[in-house]
Amino acid sequence: MGGGFGGIFLSMSDRFIQIAASIASIARGFQVRGWALGTSGNLSAVVEREPLTLAMSPSGVDKGDLTAEQILMIDEHAAVISDHHAKPSDESPLHIRIIKERGAGAVLHTHSIWNTVLSDIHAADGGLSIEGYEMLKGLEGVSTHEHCEWLPILENSQDMLALADRIGDTLRKHKDAHALLLHRHGLYSWGRDLAQAKRHVEIVEFLLEALGRTRLISQQRKV
Amino acid sequence: MGGGFGGIFLSMSDRFIQIAASIASIARGFQVRGWALGTSGNLSAVVEREPLTLAMSPSGVDKGDLTAEQILMIDEHAAVISDHHAKPSDESPLHIRIIKERGAGAVLHTHSIWNTVLSDIHAADGGLSIEGYEMLKGLEGVSTHEHCEWLPILENSQDMLALADRIGDTLRKHKDAHALLLHRHGLYSWGRDLAQAKRHVEIVEFLLEALGRTRLISQQRKV
Amino acid sequence: MGGGFGGIFLSMSDRFIQIAASIASIARGFQVRGWALGTSGNLSAVVEREPLTLAMSPSGVDKGDLTAEQILMIDEHAAVISDHHAKPSDESPLHIRIIKERGAGAVLHTHSIWNTVLSDIHAADGGLSIEGYEMLKGLEGVSTHEHCEWLPILENSQDMLALADRIGDTLRKHKDAHALLLHRHGLYSWGRDLAQAKRHVEIVEFLLEALGRTRLISQQRKV
Amino acid sequence: MGGGFGGIFLSMSDRFIQIAASIASIARGFQVRGWALGTSGNLSAVVEREPLTLAMSPSGVDKGDLTAEQILMIDEHAAVISDHHAKPSDESPLHIRIIKERGAGAVLHTHSIWNTVLSDIHAADGGLSIEGYEMLKGLEGVSTHEHCEWLPILENSQDMLALADRIGDTLRKHKDAHALLLHRHGLYSWGRDLAQAKRHVEIVEFLLEALGRTRLISQQRKV
Repeated sequence: MGGGFGGIFLSMSDRFIQIAASIASIARGFQVRGWALGTSGNLSAVVEREPLTLAMSPSGVDKGDLTAEQILMIDEHAAVISDHHAKPSDESPLHIRIIKERGAGAVLHTHSIWNTVLSDIHAADGGLSIEGYEMLKGLEGVSTHEHCEWLPILENSQDMLALADRIGDTLRKHKDAHALLLHRHGLYSWGRDLAQAKRHVEIVEFLLEALGRTRLISQQRKV
Repeated sequence: MGGGFGGIFLSMSDRFIQIAASIASIARGFQVRGWALGTSGNLSAVVEREPLTLAMSPSGVDKGDLTAEQILMIDEHAAVISDHHAKPSDESPLHIRIIKERGAGAVLHTHSIWNTVLSDIHAADGGLSIEGYEMLKGLEGVSTHEHCEWLPILENSQDMLALADRIGDTLRKHKDAHALLLHRHGLYSWGRDLAQAKRHVEIVEFLLEALGRTRLISQQRKV
Repeated sequence: MGGGFGGIFLSMSDRFIQIAASIASIARGFQVRGWALGTSGNLSAVVEREPLTLAMSPSGVDKGDLTAEQILMIDEHAAVISDHHAKPSDESPLHIRIIKERGAGAVLHTHSIWNTVLSDIHAADGGLSIEGYEMLKGLEGVSTHEHCEWLPILENSQDMLALADRIGDTLRKHKDAHALLLHRHGLYSWGRDLAQAKRHVEIVEFLLEALGRTRLISQQRKV
Repeated sequence: MGGGFGGIFLSMSDRFIQIAASIASIARGFQVRGWALGTSGNLSAVVEREPLTLAMSPSGVDKGDLTAEQILMIDEHAAVISDHHAKPSDESPLHIRIIKERGAGAVLHTHSIWNTVLSDIHAADGGLSIEGYEMLKGLEGVSTHEHCEWLPILENSQDMLALADRIGDTLRKHKDAHALLLHRHGLYSWGRDLAQAKRHVEIVEFLLEALGRTRLISQQRKV
């Protein structure tokens, strides 16, 4: 039942406590940046692989006030197994699918201005490519700014199981993708653990804003 | 005289103390985001329905320094009934009208850059529609991003009673509206309680900025 | 030697201590907003009218770290009369001139992105007018959004005494102005006291950003 | 072995402790501003000149959480000489080259949106000039806004030694430059000490954003 954490063996409940504190801290930071306004956004991390057990943010709470005590423990069917009366995020099936497809340890979802705008501008292309930026090196496995990252854009849906299936298909088709966009909805990224997933979110959010602003100025020059 | 609060019965003065602390905290947060600069913005919440009694932010104070002790208690004619020498916001009649029309428990008013800009760009249309964004689901009663929200824009006025009447007419005409704009003035939104009203403000502010920035980039592409 | 402060008579040194704490707090807040980066910006307030004695921010310090202990006391020739070895801001003569012309109790100077950009765009016009915004009501003596505020723009100079003279001429010519811009340099605003001067700065900064962003989107619509 | 610090002689280890605390504080501030997201950015300062000894931020850490205890001590070959198991930033050779070429006491590197965008827009010109802004006076040795600062832009590379050589060539060619850009990568600036290097970064970041936004609005007016 125990697992490794920085070389020390921790019980599952100790791991959950540490993970819940990190999730709450990341959520509050995202809310300050305007990436999780209006109770939007959700966050998860794996506590145990067998059976799959996740720490998950609850539905409908202000991410600027989120505390570790509010983080739920759920199973692979998104059923709450901790002693909480709250509901997990409606998008829990998307988190679970990403974790299973990628073997990820954490999944983070943000609603930023720039991810919303660019998901719209590039919707008809089914995605956008990001190439030539040093920041790309922060994505796991990328060692040069010459890397070309394809960021898929999926149509949004309220049918979470159908959307989970489409996300699964997309991840199998784009095996190197570190993130994806839902149209006029937001960004999903993931990583080995919460720190890596947070790094991936920050990098993709940064690059989307840089691309958006560059296009504005570039078009001006051509006029 | 007592009312329910999380299952516990509180006296009216206990409720006022809790509400005043929440108002001050929300005000300071809005000021940090630049939504209540220069002493602008005002906030209210219902303390008692019969007779109607509101907690209301005072006029002309820096929202970045607002404390719970500064929050006034007013009656339905905007007369101060707490032991304060301060004046309630000049816009108190607008809050009272919205509370009566909608049965709202809280009303929040912000002066953001994007609500000011879009209230101007769309003034001639009498409002703007927002459709297709996942964020819309955070508005009470909305269950899909396919929802179309009409955000009415009213001409600004210094005659607060006349403006309150026009707001009343607008709310009766647009029974599903969750918010409205005053031209070159700001946003009013409301909710069952302060948490819901804050959620509505954050969602509408987010969507206005997303719409504004999308239009900038989209126009560029068409050039 | 004593003066009134909230109805209580304070010694001049007590007043200086209170004013210095406010100046440091406002400076740190402006730096967080990006209005006083790179040690830019300066702040002053009147401690005594006869002889004229000011609290003034020192030259070349990081406004994000400014403490009350660093605030200097200077006379009407900008000579340091407190026990400090620091130099007052080079722009002290501009503060002193504004205080004398307007009878102001506080003068604040910011270097924001939007005041820099708009000082440039409108330089050839010698100023810009701001009209029709509710925010204008926060300027002292303005009671309606229909007010038209003329914001003069002066050419920048390193000759502080000559610049002070030009500022004096401008203030006499535009007796209702609440603020002025120096071209590609920044904003000066003032008020009866620090709270009012801060309110004026926040209002003008807000309106400049709103005007700048409105112009961007409006031009797009005309294309 | 001791050196002067505010007139007091400190041991090298005392100096390192002070410098490490400053580096961590500046890093956290840059992360809040969005200039060091996704573990990007790096910071260094000279602890001792002979033999050259630097305090350097470690590779791959979240700058928003950086503590003084994580700062490494490295030699002029970027080898860690403090008791840490972490790796110094990959870009340490660039810091060391700048320190040697300029006799700088501190080097700071940021990844901001505006430095990324403008490094791209002006890449073909090999740099951009900034002229006529009061903010320029905050750059060491500049006494008037009429100063013209040339900000060189170099092609990015993953070969750090080759890039260090190109930076050396650029610094010898542009002896008055206070900063340089790497294409789609970021800003390097430096100074006599950390405070001056931070001032230079803030000034150049401010001016890049002001230039970018001015161009957007100016082009609009010409349409």
